[in-house]
Amino acid sequence: MDKIKLGIIGLGNMGTVHAKNILMGKCPLISLVAIADTNPERIQWAKENLSADIALYDDADKMLDSGKVNAVIVSVPHYDHPKYAIKCFERNINVMVEKPAGVYTKQVREMNEYAKKTNAVFAMMFNQRTDHIYRKMRELVQGGTLGKIRRTNWIITNWYRSQSYYDSGAWRATWSGEGGGVLLNQCPHNLDLWQWICGMPIKVQAHLHYGKWHNIEVEDDVTTYVEYENGATGVFITTTGDAPGTNRFEITLDKGKLVAENGKLYLWELEMTENEFSAMKHSNVFASPKKSFMEVETDGKSEQHVGVLNTFAEHILNGTPLIAGGEEGINGLTLSNAMHLSSFLNKEITIPFDEELYYDELMKRVKTSRRKENIESMVSDTSGSYNA
Amino acid sequence: MDKIKLGIIGLGNMGTVHAKNILMGKCPLISLVAIADTNPERIQWAKENLSADIALYDDADKMLDSGKVNAVIVSVPHYDHPKYAIKCFERNINVMVEKPAGVYTKQVREMNEYAKKTNAVFAMMFNQRTDHIYRKMRELVQGGTLGKIRRTNWIITNWYRSQSYYDSGAWRATWSGEGGGVLLNQCPHNLDLWQWICGMPIKVQAHLHYGKWHNIEVEDDVTTYVEYENGATGVFITTTGDAPGTNRFEITLDKGKLVAENGKLYLWELEMTENEFSAMKHSNVFASPKKSFMEVETDGKSEQHVGVLNTFAEHILNGTPLIAGGEEGINGLTLSNAMHLSSFLNKEITIPFDEELYYDELMKRVKTSRRKENIESMVSDTSGSYNA
Repeated sequence: MDKIKLGIIGLGNMGTVHAKNILMGKCPLISLVAIADTNPERIQWAKENLSADIALYDDADKMLDSGKVNAVIVSVPHYDHPKYAIKCFERNINVMVEKPAGVYTKQVREMNEYAKKTNAVFAMMFNQRTDHIYRKMRELVQGGTLGKIRRTNWIITNWYRSQSYYDSGAWRATWSGEGGGVLLNQCPHNLDLWQWICGMPIKVQAHLHYGKWHNIEVEDDVTTYVEYENGATGVFITTTGDAPGTNRFEITLDKGKLVAENGKLYLWELEMTENEFSAMKHSNVFASPKKSFMEVETDGKSEQHVGVLNTFAEHILNGTPLIAGGEEGINGLTLSNAMHLSSFLNKEITIPFDEELYYDELMKRVKTSRRKENIESMVSDTSGSYNA
Repeated sequence: MDKIKLGIIGLGNMGTVHAKNILMGKCPLISLVAIADTNPERIQWAKENLSADIALYDDADKMLDSGKVNAVIVSVPHYDHPKYAIKCFERNINVMVEKPAGVYTKQVREMNEYAKKTNAVFAMMFNQRTDHIYRKMRELVQGGTLGKIRRTNWIITNWYRSQSYYDSGAWRATWSGEGGGVLLNQCPHNLDLWQWICGMPIKVQAHLHYGKWHNIEVEDDVTTYVEYENGATGVFITTTGDAPGTNRFEITLDKGKLVAENGKLYLWELEMTENEFSAMKHSNVFASPKKSFMEVETDGKSEQHVGVLNTFAEHILNGTPLIAGGEEGINGLTLSNAMHLSSFLNKEITIPFDEELYYDELMKRVKTSRRKENIESMVSDTSGSYNA
């Protein structure tokens, strides 16, 4: 069977996870043939710990120009995601970009424009889209039998991080290193899923708190209110400071309610839409619509990173649909940027917002950003940190 | 045994509930001796359906001056709560006021000032304070062993009302009749409990939607963000449009988390505060504090309206503490008024706010308020509508 010839740009936390998964045989359609990292320590580590068959480069351009790879995973710091994706597009090399798509939508829009001009496959590592619960929620919401969305509410506060986490990398949780905090590092999955399942809102009012629970310069506590085009409202709450946190996602629709919590999905379905019920004359003025309740069965499969990589390979080889097209990465980032902009300007933001203004506001913060000192850089075992 | 001699002003929904409870023998320390209502139909109903021993009046003043009563329940439309309470204070008659304390804090502040100048007992009908879950939550939060509050989140959307409900009274859900919608009619209990358990916030940003789910002029959909003096944040979401709704109250503290849902109370308690844990050096940077989990046992008692009335009588006779002092009614109303003001002015409101401004803004809306026409006024069976 043909395999794709994969290179990894960036052997940090996630690049290492992907390399190990492939070398453990979890991706039968992928040969890991090359790795590029500018950090000599990581190249040394690869030499000592990975297969001798893998070509190692201290520079991504050399790898991309080597002719050895026809597909690449970009797993470098967030700011550089678009830069390396564009390098791949210019060489017609298929590319999987780690989340977030980038740090500000202006650069991601540019990446998406480049992607249109190439035949290369462009994919995003939104592994949580493989989760059986979120897939089922999307199917039920987008299927339409429950009617239109009225209210969305995601309390996703189980991204706990101690100060030690933030002290483990000079770039972590800095404006210059990550371009934000919990919204840029931990929440891209949730922001993507939120819009993937419920659609994009058109108004955003966010309350961000910077360094509230940790000694960091970026946000670690967020409460956001949104409105959708049809008048529905939503709330998104996240933090890295709560222990134990909560992951509860509730969606109310005209004809029912969904709640995902503790790895279960619950559905209340009405006999008729609330609108129809309310329009009828009721002699008991406290009457409410009849409903059924069930725990929703799913297929139980959540293939996560490996599933996304395998589908990427199958798409390149056989045309199987991707889990997440690369051009969709801008949606979650639009939400994240809108929340930051709402906080920076202390006002409600309408989507689409002024992307140049966002860039300027972000760069103001980058200019005065302080990389942390006396940090012992480490690559961490991220097992169990994905918060599925 | 001595009994208090009680009069009821207003034989509408709640006045009727109280009268029936007392006549059914549920309040051994209370004699219902008089009722006043300006509506001849209600007086006629009382004649036909209640005990012949009860003196009936078409005017509250006559009842208050009769010398027959030494305690009164005020269960008239919201706007008139302070007026009748003050009439009682002027006569040194003990008074239990139905919720809300009034419609705007300016009038409630005046009521509270009058209360200070009298020896009459002043109490509020906050029957949900007797709920075993909320009592336990307050005990755990105020007890202090869980540390300071960090985040409060109440999704209280199970106040469903159909259009028939709103069409059942010309005054219902009008600025002139109720002075607001779900915040004034359904939520006074929740707003009181929220501040009773968690304390008062100092900043309020609210998103209200008026007549969103019903043909009414006041709000029937509310999402509010608040901040507390210690920096904690909170969210309060309510509506009469969701079916089925949710009642989930989560409180996160330095040393644990409480969740009240489906008549149960759950507690996660940390080994040490999150602050202490985060300050330690952790070689596993994804480490989080150890915790225990339990369903909290309560005494299971929720005596509701009858419990509040009996305690009112015991307080008058024996000095037993009240469930809710009358002067506390202003707290929940302050939250409600702040939410309205935030929506009217489309900005964040700091508490204390300008009460004159609120009054002016409310009166603008009262002036153009339209009582509904062709309404057949009805007194409804409210059983099961209290949303405990």
